[in-house]
Amino acid sequence: MYELGVVYRNITRTNSATADALAAYGSATVHEAMGRVGLMKPYMRPIYAGAQVSGTAVTVLLHPGDNWMMHVVAEQIRPGDIVVAAISAECTDGYFGDLLATSFQARGARALVIDAGVRDVKTLGEMKFPVWSKCISSKGTIKATLGSVNIPVVCAGMLVTPGDVIVADDDGVVCVPRTVAVQTLDAAVKREANEGAKRAKFASGVLGLDMYDMRPALEKAGLRYID
Amino acid sequence: MYELGVVYRNITRTNSATADALAAYGSATVHEAMGRVGLMKPYMRPIYAGAQVSGTAVTVLLHPGDNWMMHVVAEQIRPGDIVVAAISAECTDGYFGDLLATSFQARGARALVIDAGVRDVKTLGEMKFPVWSKCISSKGTIKATLGSVNIPVVCAGMLVTPGDVIVADDDGVVCVPRTVAVQTLDAAVKREANEGAKRAKFASGVLGLDMYDMRPALEKAGLRYID
Amino acid sequence: MYELGVVYRNITRTNSATADALAAYGSATVHEAMGRVGLMKPYMRPIYAGAQVSGTAVTVLLHPGDNWMMHVVAEQIRPGDIVVAAISAECTDGYFGDLLATSFQARGARALVIDAGVRDVKTLGEMKFPVWSKCISSKGTIKATLGSVNIPVVCAGMLVTPGDVIVADDDGVVCVPRTVAVQTLDAAVKREANEGAKRAKFASGVLGLDMYDMRPALEKAGLRYID
Amino acid sequence: MYELGVVYRNITRTNSATADALAAYGSATVHEAMGRVGLMKPYMRPIYAGAQVSGTAVTVLLHPGDNWMMHVVAEQIRPGDIVVAAISAECTDGYFGDLLATSFQARGARALVIDAGVRDVKTLGEMKFPVWSKCISSKGTIKATLGSVNIPVVCAGMLVTPGDVIVADDDGVVCVPRTVAVQTLDAAVKREANEGAKRAKFASGVLGLDMYDMRPALEKAGLRYID
Amino acid sequence: MYELGVVYRNITRTNSATADALAAYGSATVHEAMGRVGLMKPYMRPIYAGAQVSGTAVTVLLHPGDNWMMHVVAEQIRPGDIVVAAISAECTDGYFGDLLATSFQARGARALVIDAGVRDVKTLGEMKFPVWSKCISSKGTIKATLGSVNIPVVCAGMLVTPGDVIVADDDGVVCVPRTVAVQTLDAAVKREANEGAKRAKFASGVLGLDMYDMRPALEKAGLRYID
Amino acid sequence: MYELGVVYRNITRTNSATADALAAYGSATVHEAMGRVGLMKPYMRPIYAGAQVSGTAVTVLLHPGDNWMMHVVAEQIRPGDIVVAAISAECTDGYFGDLLATSFQARGARALVIDAGVRDVKTLGEMKFPVWSKCISSKGTIKATLGSVNIPVVCAGMLVTPGDVIVADDDGVVCVPRTVAVQTLDAAVKREANEGAKRAKFASGVLGLDMYDMRPALEKAGLRYID
Repeated sequence: MYELGVVYRNITRTNSATADALAAYGSATVHEAMGRVGLMKPYMRPIYAGAQVSGTAVTVLLHPGDNWMMHVVAEQIRPGDIVVAAISAECTDGYFGDLLATSFQARGARALVIDAGVRDVKTLGEMKFPVWSKCISSKGTIKATLGSVNIPVVCAGMLVTPGDVIVADDDGVVCVPRTVAVQTLDAAVKREANEGAKRAKFASGVLGLDMYDMRPALEKAGLRYID
Repeated sequence: MYELGVVYRNITRTNSATADALAAYGSATVHEAMGRVGLMKPYMRPIYAGAQVSGTAVTVLLHPGDNWMMHVVAEQIRPGDIVVAAISAECTDGYFGDLLATSFQARGARALVIDAGVRDVKTLGEMKFPVWSKCISSKGTIKATLGSVNIPVVCAGMLVTPGDVIVADDDGVVCVPRTVAVQTLDAAVKREANEGAKRAKFASGVLGLDMYDMRPALEKAGLRYID
Repeated sequence: MYELGVVYRNITRTNSATADALAAYGSATVHEAMGRVGLMKPYMRPIYAGAQVSGTAVTVLLHPGDNWMMHVVAEQIRPGDIVVAAISAECTDGYFGDLLATSFQARGARALVIDAGVRDVKTLGEMKFPVWSKCISSKGTIKATLGSVNIPVVCAGMLVTPGDVIVADDDGVVCVPRTVAVQTLDAAVKREANEGAKRAKFASGVLGLDMYDMRPALEKAGLRYID
Repeated sequence: MYELGVVYRNITRTNSATADALAAYGSATVHEAMGRVGLMKPYMRPIYAGAQVSGTAVTVLLHPGDNWMMHVVAEQIRPGDIVVAAISAECTDGYFGDLLATSFQARGARALVIDAGVRDVKTLGEMKFPVWSKCISSKGTIKATLGSVNIPVVCAGMLVTPGDVIVADDDGVVCVPRTVAVQTLDAAVKREANEGAKRAKFASGVLGLDMYDMRPALEKAGLRYID
Repeated sequence: MYELGVVYRNITRTNSATADALAAYGSATVHEAMGRVGLMKPYMRPIYAGAQVSGTAVTVLLHPGDNWMMHVVAEQIRPGDIVVAAISAECTDGYFGDLLATSFQARGARALVIDAGVRDVKTLGEMKFPVWSKCISSKGTIKATLGSVNIPVVCAGMLVTPGDVIVADDDGVVCVPRTVAVQTLDAAVKREANEGAKRAKFASGVLGLDMYDMRPALEKAGLRYID
Repeated sequence: MYELGVVYRNITRTNSATADALAAYGSATVHEAMGRVGLMKPYMRPIYAGAQVSGTAVTVLLHPGDNWMMHVVAEQIRPGDIVVAAISAECTDGYFGDLLATSFQARGARALVIDAGVRDVKTLGEMKFPVWSKCISSKGTIKATLGSVNIPVVCAGMLVTPGDVIVADDDGVVCVPRTVAVQTLDAAVKREANEGAKRAKFASGVLGLDMYDMRPALEKAGLRYID
């Protein structure tokens, strides 16, 4: 359930060094580093290809067809933040366009993640303001009903608490809770450490079957080869 | 994000008198009584019509195609509970059938709410064990990977904390947080109090336009009648 | 495009004898009688099985999450009408429940057809007030924005002009324009006339291949039988 | 790929004793007995609840919006058959209604499984002719293009070869290849043999954790209980 | 309902100066200028990014899997037109490819808007012939059944009358009725007039809260700030 | 039904000259050349635009959330192959990323076609390793359950037998059975032969109505022109 009509001004953000460092590892590696959890649903797609970001979450809860709280959350943005917008019921309207993006960018926001639609996507691409959204829609919204800012929200199936780290790229969006951000970064660093060596082996033709010594386990599981 | 491989044995359940009393009001009224929040997504449907229940949530996090933790959560059920099952990624498999239902029912569970599929639905109907699910599927599952029991989970888009109250009927499923259960029950009681009078007025032909005195506001908003 | 903020009080309804007579033929036969057009999309489903109705359309355009105009349209209902509700953008909220149904029924409405959600479906079934809808949802709505009543609307992909005939049953919903209602009824009557004879032949084991003399056309098209 | 414009008259049906016996075990048990394969996608739903059938598959490939071959397949039906209808591209039209059902039933067909829509569902229910379909739709079809009868088809994601056994109930539809029908029946019989004993134990409050001796494996996997 | 088998040769097109001028404002601004109506559903997507067009609608009604009328509508195209194609039931087939695009382009068409699939999308991109469609599919169609040309159609949920203006870009597709095209253009011009000033203010860090003087209304609605 | 736990090492691949030559014609032409069959469902989309390939199919059956067999199939790849991956139930997880792509590419694979998700799509694009998939997802998989390699599989609704030819481009994916590959290539060559001439005619303004001599058939079907 959501607390309505409140704006929490003081949230505890993940340390910026940690939050910033996670971007380089990408959503897939970070998700693996957390134990294969934390991903939003795969319908969340970037409005243009190639962006890869991380930052601290400020959250906003909106109602269907109403983007009033987008202006309220703008004031709570600090440099390095990513705005995470949840809606209280399913909606495909376009809650966000180039003017709000200009405002968010001026406040230091790095991206928007929204479980609804956005518009002005060509201009957003020219501005290099990345958005991950459920859809793209010209449909405008009204400003009539209170939601909340910086409460925990469920966005695309994932719980996001203000101050958590968001990592987003072409593969999707992952939320790293503040309490496990440091250990997740450590685990991501370790995962990446030997990726180069593995890639070189694969490129030389070595099979995963041999590199990971899978043959005994496959045989034990009963795999039969038939000529 | 989810904590994996843990079972919380001691959870604080909502007072049973409150939890039990909410059933009579149904999901629509209870959702209104909370300020129009708390609903799971409308793809959650009952496997048979007519059941209307409430109870305290015990939660379980499962992985795609793996129902191992269903047996772990069974042990944590107390009479009056409703099991809420979330999956770590989208899945339509049939996690639950008549044998598990027999076990759950023997432990005192009143219902299952699951963001995936179930099977043996004819037998479940005969047993009068209600289930709200995303789909129905014969597809079986394996028992290989640890999830968790009694952690907060996101089920069909809604955060459920163990001990919260679940209210479910033909209209859908709502989660009432433990901390607001009493006030929600009070609000629901008040909402219902004058429903009978309203219904009688409507039945006699009185219009909502007059009963709720909407005409001035509609006129102010600019509504024009054209003959 | 839609004209907003207007209520047309005087609409030309299809002759009631014609409108009433179409129910008996059902949506499939009526759709065939019109030349295989006029159907709403098949996601429109009845909230309970077995209802089969026809009536004259009064229309209402609503906005996402806002059912204010439902009260406005109630006043325009006359006995024998079916309310057709369109939404200006996709929405699954529950716009209609037992109180409004009581009001609609008191005004003489035979059914509701709505391109969104409804609630209180158990009670609606007990009241024998049939609804065809996109979904079922407890989600409540607000009363804030003007739509219109008795303008032409697009409901579930089909254009409905006030006064047209709506025919709905377990197979779906069809709209018969007022201007072709009489000829459609005539065509439906003719279609049904020899259904009994056909059914008896099929029941006796005669094949459609022979009854409709399809073998020459199939052979000409190149159908080959292989033993 | 599909061979078009052919009707295979002689197919090798699974032995009728085997085909008939599988119905009693239901789609979930039969699917488990095959090693958890063979299911059609869960969007295939019965048009009325409670039917549970098995029979030998006769197949038909149709084109979008064209049910001509339905009349061709009718001639190939023998008592005990279930017609399996695939479409060459996605379509929701109503390919089948009460007249064709009368014909199919007269020929001895037990059911229809179709990856598209059907209509006249109220009458089909009264006739007790069960159908599993993707949807229900009044939309009629034309008779213009050749498909094929009794070729292997893909229906709702599953390959069906003529003569295979189809098992369908409220949980879904499973296809048992003729070559493994006997061994699948044996395995299903064994699976069911001790279900009664298990159910009694569950009903008495014994947990699956103990009945299946899961505690050591869960502990080994690292499950932690927290008080 | 649709009139079948007719081609209206004389339609009243919106004045070309008005129709042409709307392109510059884009679908979002034009939709707002009409009072937030007129949009097709957001599943309509461009086959390549960056196109932004407007033009007068010529319409065509097609049947599932049949593109015969595409050749009929080609003859009715005049320079500056946009073809709007509706289908009488849901279909994902590829109705249109590079040859038809060459023909349409030679006749002066600026774009195609189709509630179904298209193919040869790489070539269409190279030809700079923009298409907005429901999907992309190689699936071919037949030429067997009559539809109509230049009748009012429902495309992606929106009524389009021949001669209306279509405005399409990366955000979606909007239909501006001929009767309101001039006033819509005026309103769009006014909306855009002060966009530059607003953008500059947002870029300098001014908040929407202050620029639009939202704080009193938010306070009145009960918004609480919590430190 | 699927045979589980087997790897067929010796499959009969389509002659490489034929398999290679089909790429140039693209999925739409090849599908037409086969008689308008053979296409996978249109939800299969390329992860980047512009790739156009053909090759011989090696197949793999995977289980939901488990990519173990991806390493097994890698060993069976020969230069010129395209891997076709089917899943035993619906799943959106990311089964494949840059490391496996490096391995597949080193073995000579030209592409992957998978009825599930993939990740590392930016890197895959940089590597020029094309993938057609149902979705993109960071979600990782486990390695626990046996599937099979080089058995016939159903991928996105189409049966694929090992050794068949896969043709994929921006329009979709088509499977050409080995037994009809030569005749399909011949038919494709013929279809393309006069495309240039047709395009030139269309570009000069000739209508399909005249080029294909459609006017008599349209008139016979009853098409009426109204001025």
